[in-house]
Amino acid sequence: MVGLPARGKTFVARKVQRYVSWLGYRTLWVNVGDYRRARAGAKQPAGYFAPDNTATRGEREGFAMAALDDLLDWFEKGGEVGIYDATNAERCRRDIIRNRCAAAAVPHLFVETICDDPGIIDANIRRNKLGLPDYAGIGAKEAFGDFQARIAQYARTYVPVEDDEGSYVKLVDAGKRVISSRVEGYLSSRLVFFLMQVRPTDRPIWLTRHGESEFNVVGRIGGDAPLTAHGKEYAELLASFVRARTAHAVVWTSTLQRAIATAAPLGHVQAWRALDEIDAGVCEGLTYDEIKAQMPDDFAARAGDKFRYRYPRGESYADVIQRLEPVIVELEHERSPLLIVGHQAVIRVLYGYLMGKPQDECPHLQIPLHTVVQLTPTEFGYQEERFAL
Amino acid sequence: MVGLPARGKTFVARKVQRYVSWLGYRTLWVNVGDYRRARAGAKQPAGYFAPDNTATRGEREGFAMAALDDLLDWFEKGGEVGIYDATNAERCRRDIIRNRCAAAAVPHLFVETICDDPGIIDANIRRNKLGLPDYAGIGAKEAFGDFQARIAQYARTYVPVEDDEGSYVKLVDAGKRVISSRVEGYLSSRLVFFLMQVRPTDRPIWLTRHGESEFNVVGRIGGDAPLTAHGKEYAELLASFVRARTAHAVVWTSTLQRAIATAAPLGHVQAWRALDEIDAGVCEGLTYDEIKAQMPDDFAARAGDKFRYRYPRGESYADVIQRLEPVIVELEHERSPLLIVGHQAVIRVLYGYLMGKPQDECPHLQIPLHTVVQLTPTEFGYQEERFAL
Repeated sequence: MVGLPARGKTFVARKVQRYVSWLGYRTLWVNVGDYRRARAGAKQPAGYFAPDNTATRGEREGFAMAALDDLLDWFEKGGEVGIYDATNAERCRRDIIRNRCAAAAVPHLFVETICDDPGIIDANIRRNKLGLPDYAGIGAKEAFGDFQARIAQYARTYVPVEDDEGSYVKLVDAGKRVISSRVEGYLSSRLVFFLMQVRPTDRPIWLTRHGESEFNVVGRIGGDAPLTAHGKEYAELLASFVRARTAHAVVWTSTLQRAIATAAPLGHVQAWRALDEIDAGVCEGLTYDEIKAQMPDDFAARAGDKFRYRYPRGESYADVIQRLEPVIVELEHERSPLLIVGHQAVIRVLYGYLMGKPQDECPHLQIPLHTVVQLTPTEFGYQEERFAL
Repeated sequence: MVGLPARGKTFVARKVQRYVSWLGYRTLWVNVGDYRRARAGAKQPAGYFAPDNTATRGEREGFAMAALDDLLDWFEKGGEVGIYDATNAERCRRDIIRNRCAAAAVPHLFVETICDDPGIIDANIRRNKLGLPDYAGIGAKEAFGDFQARIAQYARTYVPVEDDEGSYVKLVDAGKRVISSRVEGYLSSRLVFFLMQVRPTDRPIWLTRHGESEFNVVGRIGGDAPLTAHGKEYAELLASFVRARTAHAVVWTSTLQRAIATAAPLGHVQAWRALDEIDAGVCEGLTYDEIKAQMPDDFAARAGDKFRYRYPRGESYADVIQRLEPVIVELEHERSPLLIVGHQAVIRVLYGYLMGKPQDECPHLQIPLHTVVQLTPTEFGYQEERFAL
């Protein structure tokens, strides 16, 4: 990461961390500020950050290098994507990072966040900085002034990433403009596309499974069964729930009738095939008891590794993540309150992405029927509430 | 499109046209140069293009406006994506375009191609310009000099797209750097991601179905049957075919065993679930005669609209296009000679994309077994050769 303080670096870094780890990469995020707070104590005045403060400059470089050492050590142990979250505002610091990455054969991508809008910066400071341990027990006004002074210290030597620094992407004014250079490779280019969609938002996301279906009642998996009377009742309760909270919800469902019928009382919905339930292949329409009796090896294999197990002629959870990736990109792009009516496996996977769960935990997450999971954006993630209707 | 002559505008425009129409949008490409050649004659010297040539300036503006009129008329008739291929190098020209689009409620996206590398520009002129009708019967050296003079005329008044011109994307040095600004909406952001992958290349693409499978012999569709002896023979012939042409082929297959086995003699392959055959749902493993007998309504529906028909619990060709979109992006990104071993429906769809076929023609394209379709890049598309092995 590159950028002055209060430009949304950590917001972007945490989004990238969740996205990339959800895609299955071993991912580590390190924040140099955490090293400083742990080693020098949180409460340092703005002057501590002055580039010409010879008393602190060496110490601050030491924290940055300690974090970089840890990150590179972790790459040696099999890490795949490391996120180095710090201002890295000086060219000489970035040269060190680039050279050390090159020596470790780790390709780098500078992600620079640029914002010159004082309104956005001030709001960022108030929302994300005044609550830092750095300002514990200090009044908001004093803290605000100190943080502005800290930014000014960094600004004295800040040099935006230059064209000869290799791969970079610059996010200007919270994504209004995006400049990418020499971005190569599958993951990097996917990442740039993802970053083009990411913008701060405060709209909630509601996740739910469809209402009870006739297959639920008899314990059969897959299929395309209609709702029961109980399921239809949930559809009405769900519509009231959403309408009580917003008049402008965007509603996505799968293409299966139990999901479409669950959203139907809300009117216009968009049906995505990518939101269809995990394809159980030859096991579609069976009960778990039938699978256990007819295909004991498959039943045991699934119990052994529910994440990687692929139903014969069907899908694994890993396959579901692949096909949900475009949904995630659209979800980040969408700015309105969003209701997603899906199925057990797909909602587990979407929830796993939003809440930053490791891939292999996804198949074990609890997503009961007739429950709305409400996720409201916080500083760097989501706050969860569940409503059983 | 925006950019000086010989900067690859038409190359990019035609790629966009194929991609967007393959995604199902009604797409039109108009080239102002074609209007000029049709109305004023092809053979105009460089001086004709001088911005201060008062004798020709009005005429040239007339051609540009005629092309724009036609494009906007077509939007009124239901067109969805129009590509206006011209230099549009002057700010005042772009202001007219932007205002006329706004008046017609058509959102615009300027796509500017920028290149300052004389080696690339000269190669572009030699490859794409000397064969234009503009230079019929004129020696290469003279034509080259004239085209350079024409570029110089445009360069006199060229102003790159500025930040207050709304949505734009700039492709610098054939995609090495990409700058996008105020790109909003699903299609525009997908397009920018696509443009990040697109670069001129001369590597061939080979498309083939898997070798004959045991299901092919008995006329059953879908399934995951192994190869016959005849199919295994094709796998060996295919490996020899590819090895005779390159030592560095990248090989993609579906995850079905008949495709993997067909590519196996080539060693390392990447298996994509997105390349799996169209899912025939409840019809998997049936013959067409059985489908006709057991599900006469479905059989008739499929015959009536083979593109939109979705097998019960399975897929339509439209669904297959959706799931192949990431493959297309990777295909544009991949720079090595590429062999794709797929299945009838997926190869039809990939071939349709590469050869610019309308979506609804895809289900009817001829892709026989044991035939390699070789596609070699040309100026703005591909040249096709077929090899029955």
